[in-house]
Amino acid sequence: MPSHILRIDCPDEAGLVHKITGVLYNAGYNVLSNQEFVDLEAKHFFMRTAFEGPTAPDRVVSYLEQILPANATVKLSAAASQPIVIMATTEAHCLGDLLIRHYSGEFPAVIRAVVSNHEKLKPLVEQFGIPFHYVSHQNLERTAHEDLVAEVVREYTPEYIVLAKYMRILSPKFVARYPNRMINIHHSFLPAFIGAKPYHQAYERGVKIIGATAHIVTDDLDTGPIIAQGVIPVSHTYTAAAMVQAGRDVEKIVLARAVKLVLEERVFLHGNRTIIFD
Amino acid sequence: MPSHILRIDCPDEAGLVHKITGVLYNAGYNVLSNQEFVDLEAKHFFMRTAFEGPTAPDRVVSYLEQILPANATVKLSAAASQPIVIMATTEAHCLGDLLIRHYSGEFPAVIRAVVSNHEKLKPLVEQFGIPFHYVSHQNLERTAHEDLVAEVVREYTPEYIVLAKYMRILSPKFVARYPNRMINIHHSFLPAFIGAKPYHQAYERGVKIIGATAHIVTDDLDTGPIIAQGVIPVSHTYTAAAMVQAGRDVEKIVLARAVKLVLEERVFLHGNRTIIFD
Amino acid sequence: MPSHILRIDCPDEAGLVHKITGVLYNAGYNVLSNQEFVDLEAKHFFMRTAFEGPTAPDRVVSYLEQILPANATVKLSAAASQPIVIMATTEAHCLGDLLIRHYSGEFPAVIRAVVSNHEKLKPLVEQFGIPFHYVSHQNLERTAHEDLVAEVVREYTPEYIVLAKYMRILSPKFVARYPNRMINIHHSFLPAFIGAKPYHQAYERGVKIIGATAHIVTDDLDTGPIIAQGVIPVSHTYTAAAMVQAGRDVEKIVLARAVKLVLEERVFLHGNRTIIFD
Amino acid sequence: MPSHILRIDCPDEAGLVHKITGVLYNAGYNVLSNQEFVDLEAKHFFMRTAFEGPTAPDRVVSYLEQILPANATVKLSAAASQPIVIMATTEAHCLGDLLIRHYSGEFPAVIRAVVSNHEKLKPLVEQFGIPFHYVSHQNLERTAHEDLVAEVVREYTPEYIVLAKYMRILSPKFVARYPNRMINIHHSFLPAFIGAKPYHQAYERGVKIIGATAHIVTDDLDTGPIIAQGVIPVSHTYTAAAMVQAGRDVEKIVLARAVKLVLEERVFLHGNRTIIFD
Repeated sequence: MPSHILRIDCPDEAGLVHKITGVLYNAGYNVLSNQEFVDLEAKHFFMRTAFEGPTAPDRVVSYLEQILPANATVKLSAAASQPIVIMATTEAHCLGDLLIRHYSGEFPAVIRAVVSNHEKLKPLVEQFGIPFHYVSHQNLERTAHEDLVAEVVREYTPEYIVLAKYMRILSPKFVARYPNRMINIHHSFLPAFIGAKPYHQAYERGVKIIGATAHIVTDDLDTGPIIAQGVIPVSHTYTAAAMVQAGRDVEKIVLARAVKLVLEERVFLHGNRTIIFD
Repeated sequence: MPSHILRIDCPDEAGLVHKITGVLYNAGYNVLSNQEFVDLEAKHFFMRTAFEGPTAPDRVVSYLEQILPANATVKLSAAASQPIVIMATTEAHCLGDLLIRHYSGEFPAVIRAVVSNHEKLKPLVEQFGIPFHYVSHQNLERTAHEDLVAEVVREYTPEYIVLAKYMRILSPKFVARYPNRMINIHHSFLPAFIGAKPYHQAYERGVKIIGATAHIVTDDLDTGPIIAQGVIPVSHTYTAAAMVQAGRDVEKIVLARAVKLVLEERVFLHGNRTIIFD
Repeated sequence: MPSHILRIDCPDEAGLVHKITGVLYNAGYNVLSNQEFVDLEAKHFFMRTAFEGPTAPDRVVSYLEQILPANATVKLSAAASQPIVIMATTEAHCLGDLLIRHYSGEFPAVIRAVVSNHEKLKPLVEQFGIPFHYVSHQNLERTAHEDLVAEVVREYTPEYIVLAKYMRILSPKFVARYPNRMINIHHSFLPAFIGAKPYHQAYERGVKIIGATAHIVTDDLDTGPIIAQGVIPVSHTYTAAAMVQAGRDVEKIVLARAVKLVLEERVFLHGNRTIIFD
Repeated sequence: MPSHILRIDCPDEAGLVHKITGVLYNAGYNVLSNQEFVDLEAKHFFMRTAFEGPTAPDRVVSYLEQILPANATVKLSAAASQPIVIMATTEAHCLGDLLIRHYSGEFPAVIRAVVSNHEKLKPLVEQFGIPFHYVSHQNLERTAHEDLVAEVVREYTPEYIVLAKYMRILSPKFVARYPNRMINIHHSFLPAFIGAKPYHQAYERGVKIIGATAHIVTDDLDTGPIIAQGVIPVSHTYTAAAMVQAGRDVEKIVLARAVKLVLEERVFLHGNRTIIFD
């Protein structure tokens, strides 16, 4: 029996869980797991439900539309693999980690293609039998380059796009093509460092912890809603290069965790925050 | 408006969230937060709901008894401080941490008394204005000693008992007085060490991590359902004494976290597992 | 046999460990532990040696001065408790943690006094038999208030000063009285938040990790050399108040760890970095 | 200028650092980094020194033999990639992680070959251009199978062997071929679980943390000296399968960290403990 995932968010009002589970219950579905959260300050309601039962679950959405507030967001997904495209530049650690997980079958995604503005990672990707597209940014305006990338990506109709150390800033125009459907990873420090060479700054500052943050891509560079974070301890014996290396270990684990949460439809956005049902 | 916490667990059946929230909704209560979990293997349902509204919430329980399965467990608590008694022996780190949290008003408990089989911690406890009872085990059978302890504890009618490094094994008879209402902390290692002087064994083995586990006390020593766990890194530069010291830091934080979860009625038991709504 | 701690840092040159241990060896001392580090970029040498042996270890310093580069820094300490003064404001978690550790005898410090710009913590401190000085900042210029504080602190001739959530900015003049001898703790976030109410900002941003950083106090507020850092996971179920509470747990553990490292003379400064022999 | 790594361990005696660095100093070598540790209980001395300078560093070893205690262990290595062979069975997570690191050039190893008792991982390994040897254990006595494996491995003259989820117990005879030169990874729990299906047991017990331990292989299965450990938090929402998955993330990171420490000659053994200069 196929199972389905239902995501709902809407302004909170009395009896929502009651009404929603009532719809499923009356239509003969069996709830497998159910998580909900009310942001009491914002008076907003979030719910993720996995359920199984009769075919044609789409009718559940139309039933729900009749009982939910007008501005509710409802998404129904099959609890199965979702198509993604990965964008990368030259670093292999995040991309390689995703490729190995995909290879092992442990990831609820089908990696349909990898797009890069460099050729370096082509052999790595192709040896896994996955299409690799090299779209150079040489001699191109940002928008022109992005249009070429977008053309390639569109062909694969991804549900989500994963930026696995893609080192170019994306314009609002590109971001708008996949609103809240792009996931990025970047290093994070305590304290934060602004400007170039953050690891070098972190080294100069003698930090004892290096972190990584995976987030939804929005127009503001590196400040979208946070999905997952992690840290790794370092010490004075680390050179700046060793800190970069330590950072890679935490980056790849945090990105993989974030992508899994998104693919399983466990991540909700509200303003600049995420609600995560893990 | 006072708020209340409702805990329910029972065999799973279709529509439980629907029915339970329906009761609250129809009686005019407003749900503040709601968490539920279904153990799909065991087909068992767990739910914690905080709500506020009209007075006399006790009637909610009787309404629920009419709609829930016969063997459902329902507990209604005020979302406020609960009375506890702490048992300790000679170590100050866990007890002291709880006393400071209590003093700061950050803990949802009233520490009514501390009972110890040694006198050592008496000045520390009494300087906080909390009754201290010294119940020596000298020249007493285990049962006779425990009866004396139980007599003292009973006076304070605690909702929960916290074993803050109480170093005596409790008999099943004593445990039965406060079933699933006693919380203990003990050191934990990877790998585990059986027998005496575990820190010395951990040192000999060169472990790189030291842990602590807080659990519900059952008849089986140190193997009750786990509430919280934590670890702290150590290295070859640590003597066995330094490992003990590192262990204390993690013990006190893990115990405090576990006690807070229990006091806020966030911990459910199912067989030897805990379901924790944090 | 009393043991001693020797700290040396100087520009690196060939054979330093050879020469230094030679001095100790020839003078009949037995090295108990020895840690050294060369910053290869800065070509700077750091060494911490614990040793025991004949009396009058002070002569070791004069021997060393003859063989070390002219600008070497040499410090000899007894491996025993050092006098400290704690400064606090109104929060009890860090102060209380230090008081309990001190009470348990696990801390290599004698807390000679606590100074605060509020009266709130007076009963807590005095019940431990430690002098508490209330030095109000009401109606005083910063400098005038600091002069009063300094007068109180001076009486106790502390080796180090611990700022246990002392919530006033210290002027360069005050900092200059105890150069590199004051330790502070402050919250840290990934990403960082500038301005008021950082926990509220962190909540709005939906961070998944909250951190704390302990550092040496310098003229630049909250940016001195880092001694220790820690983090604690949080989630969307945390209110801003719950994030503050989680932050307190990590703050107190990180501060205590930093103070212990400093008291044991394990922390070296070099520019804005620390070298830590733990 | 090539750099070298010198490892020494021997019974402690006064002046060892003095003597050893004296040898290097007098022979014209420049010490790049130097770490030493004395186990005060065992009165044993450990030292790792990276140095550069004149050619023919081998003579350093003969110089040292003249001044060190008779039973000293001295090892001189080039600070460069070391040849390894990986043994695996069917799981791809640890092997894949090592392959990606190797591919990225971030690992101080040359993976000369992978040997497995199953064919499953052959395409993954060969696509990286690395020889894969399938040595089935079907219808073979343990010793007979191990002899075939040993024959394959011997050809590649590895300095170290990495067991990346190799799921067969190795006989003392096989272990004796590469004494203290084989690294293994296995799951670890707090508390520990003995017997079959440990993750299932961990699930039944409701653990909140899952760990992994990398260790040197000795005759006693899974109890050799520990090199590195790590943990990952889990909760009641994890099925046994999800715990296995979480365990894989920590296993691969801990194994990679342990292999790097060993390859860089940072791991010393003493009895059942490791001294690690990281």
